[in-house]
Amino acid sequence: MHRICLLLALCGGAHLAHAQTLISQDDLDIAAQLRDRALNSDMAYQLLESLTVEVGPRMAGTPGDAAGVAWAKKTFEALDYDQVALEPVTFPLWRRGAESAEVTAPYPQPLAVTALGFSPGTGPQGVEAKVVHFGTLHELAQIEDGSLNGEIVFISNQMERTKTGEGYGPAVVARRDGSTVTAAKGGSAVMIRSVGTDNNRTPHTGTMRVEPGQAAVPAAALSNPDADLLVAMLERGDVTVKLSLDVGIDGEGLSHNVIGDIKGSDKADEFVIIGGHLDSWDLGTGAVDDGFGVAITMAAGRFIAEHAPRPPSRTIRVVAWANEEQGLWGAKAYYEAHKDQLEKHLVGAESDFGAGRVWAFASRVNKAALPVIGQIHSVLEPLGIELGNNAAFGGADVLPLRAAGMPVVSLYQDGSDYFDYHHTANDTLDKVDPEVMRQNFAAWVAFTWLAANYPGTFSPAPVIE
Amino acid sequence: MHRICLLLALCGGAHLAHAQTLISQDDLDIAAQLRDRALNSDMAYQLLESLTVEVGPRMAGTPGDAAGVAWAKKTFEALDYDQVALEPVTFPLWRRGAESAEVTAPYPQPLAVTALGFSPGTGPQGVEAKVVHFGTLHELAQIEDGSLNGEIVFISNQMERTKTGEGYGPAVVARRDGSTVTAAKGGSAVMIRSVGTDNNRTPHTGTMRVEPGQAAVPAAALSNPDADLLVAMLERGDVTVKLSLDVGIDGEGLSHNVIGDIKGSDKADEFVIIGGHLDSWDLGTGAVDDGFGVAITMAAGRFIAEHAPRPPSRTIRVVAWANEEQGLWGAKAYYEAHKDQLEKHLVGAESDFGAGRVWAFASRVNKAALPVIGQIHSVLEPLGIELGNNAAFGGADVLPLRAAGMPVVSLYQDGSDYFDYHHTANDTLDKVDPEVMRQNFAAWVAFTWLAANYPGTFSPAPVIE
Repeated sequence: MHRICLLLALCGGAHLAHAQTLISQDDLDIAAQLRDRALNSDMAYQLLESLTVEVGPRMAGTPGDAAGVAWAKKTFEALDYDQVALEPVTFPLWRRGAESAEVTAPYPQPLAVTALGFSPGTGPQGVEAKVVHFGTLHELAQIEDGSLNGEIVFISNQMERTKTGEGYGPAVVARRDGSTVTAAKGGSAVMIRSVGTDNNRTPHTGTMRVEPGQAAVPAAALSNPDADLLVAMLERGDVTVKLSLDVGIDGEGLSHNVIGDIKGSDKADEFVIIGGHLDSWDLGTGAVDDGFGVAITMAAGRFIAEHAPRPPSRTIRVVAWANEEQGLWGAKAYYEAHKDQLEKHLVGAESDFGAGRVWAFASRVNKAALPVIGQIHSVLEPLGIELGNNAAFGGADVLPLRAAGMPVVSLYQDGSDYFDYHHTANDTLDKVDPEVMRQNFAAWVAFTWLAANYPGTFSPAPVIE
Repeated sequence: MHRICLLLALCGGAHLAHAQTLISQDDLDIAAQLRDRALNSDMAYQLLESLTVEVGPRMAGTPGDAAGVAWAKKTFEALDYDQVALEPVTFPLWRRGAESAEVTAPYPQPLAVTALGFSPGTGPQGVEAKVVHFGTLHELAQIEDGSLNGEIVFISNQMERTKTGEGYGPAVVARRDGSTVTAAKGGSAVMIRSVGTDNNRTPHTGTMRVEPGQAAVPAAALSNPDADLLVAMLERGDVTVKLSLDVGIDGEGLSHNVIGDIKGSDKADEFVIIGGHLDSWDLGTGAVDDGFGVAITMAAGRFIAEHAPRPPSRTIRVVAWANEEQGLWGAKAYYEAHKDQLEKHLVGAESDFGAGRVWAFASRVNKAALPVIGQIHSVLEPLGIELGNNAAFGGADVLPLRAAGMPVVSLYQDGSDYFDYHHTANDTLDKVDPEVMRQNFAAWVAFTWLAANYPGTFSPAPVIE
């Protein structure tokens, strides 16, 4: 390809070099029509309302999760998906019972606390000990192994608020590894400042990591105001806390990926795979994380089937993923079950970053297909969406497929307030703005139609270091 | 007084008719200096930090409340108040144990709930019944007595957000009387939408009213998102809820008004009485309601004693009131103990409307003293404070004194976000902006100095219908 052609192609204009495999003008026009119609549709919001009201919390392996699976199956069927399948997913079953914490000396006060997923319990007596304060996990990691004497470790660093969520990574390490590192140092339990950006007394849960046979201590998150309080107490001197967590792993859990297919016409055995994760944490109703993504993508398949002038060329596969929260168990199960069809998966994407406006469209495709990404972006641009780079994340549940080579895209959302609600009791429907949801919905409808009808390939996708 | 003199006086100018008893220019100058110095002082914020960190929740009659009394006594002494007194206050002791609610059919989900103060308990089995939905208390009141058959009443109207808090009155009637009215109608329990303006899963508690011997049912508040959820379920059909409240009245409680006096010079037996209430609800740390008011006024007395060039003419009496929340028990006890000295109380005021900026200064004084109110306002005006009317509220804890004729003033605060935190777990220190607190502090310091040195009287105060 001549440089000038490439430049033209990158500009995303309608008149591109004929040597290039591109999306047809007809499909671009249909996508624009679908986009504009979707902007006036509350179908996605109505699905989310149904899921949160009629099911609510859906922690993996709980009755609520099973109700979510039944809801997704029934809803795919009600939306006239051509095929609906349940795919079993198993995982360690973690349960949450009563949980509490209190300062017992010198300033007795209750603390708002929640256990981290996979935390062991404290036993009915709880753990009562002096608190040792570390600014970061790194500071804790640097002390000598075995040098603590049964103290409760407190890690106080706070997540930074950003649009992209980049504050999450530096903060979440304490949640992930605080328990096992504390065990190695000789502590009896760990409390972290919630990985979140709000100032509500609604602590943020989330998984911790523990390998089979690895020592771990009970682990919990304090709300930001409670972490502030504890910091202020520790500035005055010694503080003793009692932590009681009736939680733990209790056998094996069972859930299901729920898969709905809108059948393609000429390339029915090839897929564009989109979705959200059906499980949530137990504290809220999982509206923002990730009922939003489930509803957007379930509605997108139906909306295309109902309103496009003809069926899509490829099959649109919508997956309501099982147990994302506790370690991508549904994503791994899907990969195991479908790895022999990997090359049939043209491109994948998940909506799982809250309920904010989509502000960028990024890809992870073969460079030769970037002009096609430009074409898709040209239909998304009127929604206020920038063109991103070619190093898209894709979404947590497409990571196993991405690692095996599947191209992905991301419709990046503004995450400025996502970590106010993420993994808390405050993750409820009222946090979702229906107008912003329509913008997301329109973007997913347009992208999905275009990808399903693009005659070429996005493979091989680049390996990103 | 001639009309023209009155007009001049109302304009608050410095050159007023000589017949009028006014505040001296010297005292106006001292007040302005104190105001400007207080604007740079964090004394009030530091007291609030100390109270919330070292004491925390202070529900009347609890160990936290007793710790609050000890804190207030110790702090008045540390601030070199001339006299510190504890005044006993008794009241019915209401206790809160475990509380929970859940939808049991058709969409099982937990609900975020908290009992109302003075609610009876449900017993260990809880109350499980069909929910009957009323928009308002008024709608419930209109059905025939005894016409319910053990259902749980749900009252769903929502409080409106305003600067003045005027949305509180229409909403709070359901909290106050929902329990007894439900009992009269034959219901088994009542759940109200929280009297609050936020969308957090932190329900708002507060007292209900029940006369001795009057029938009442267990009463609780749902958070706004939970009330939305229940409304959405009820739009679909019948809903059954289980409510479990381990709460109730348990004998008699004891607390204390804590009174600190900065002794006046020539009129030491006359008082300017200011304060805030020391008790809080148990869910938060009572930073906004009403540690803020306690800290502002305790600091004001000290600040004047420390920084004014001479002692105030009258005694500045600061009261950290006991048990305001459950029915002005401290205010009533003070009135009973001091009603023979009523005429010695020049003017009273309480800071008890959250942590917002003061935007208006209002009075309830004899009309002849309105020029003096104008003088005081002239010192407050640079803080962005308007002159209000002559029908000031004064504050809940000065109501018994006001009812007996004591003049009052109000430093009205912007309450736009007060009912986001009021009576919830979210009432914590982080909700207080230190800069806004300094503005409040400066206003209270200036007002208090001027009132304590005003040579005249504000009595008799007008009766307000």
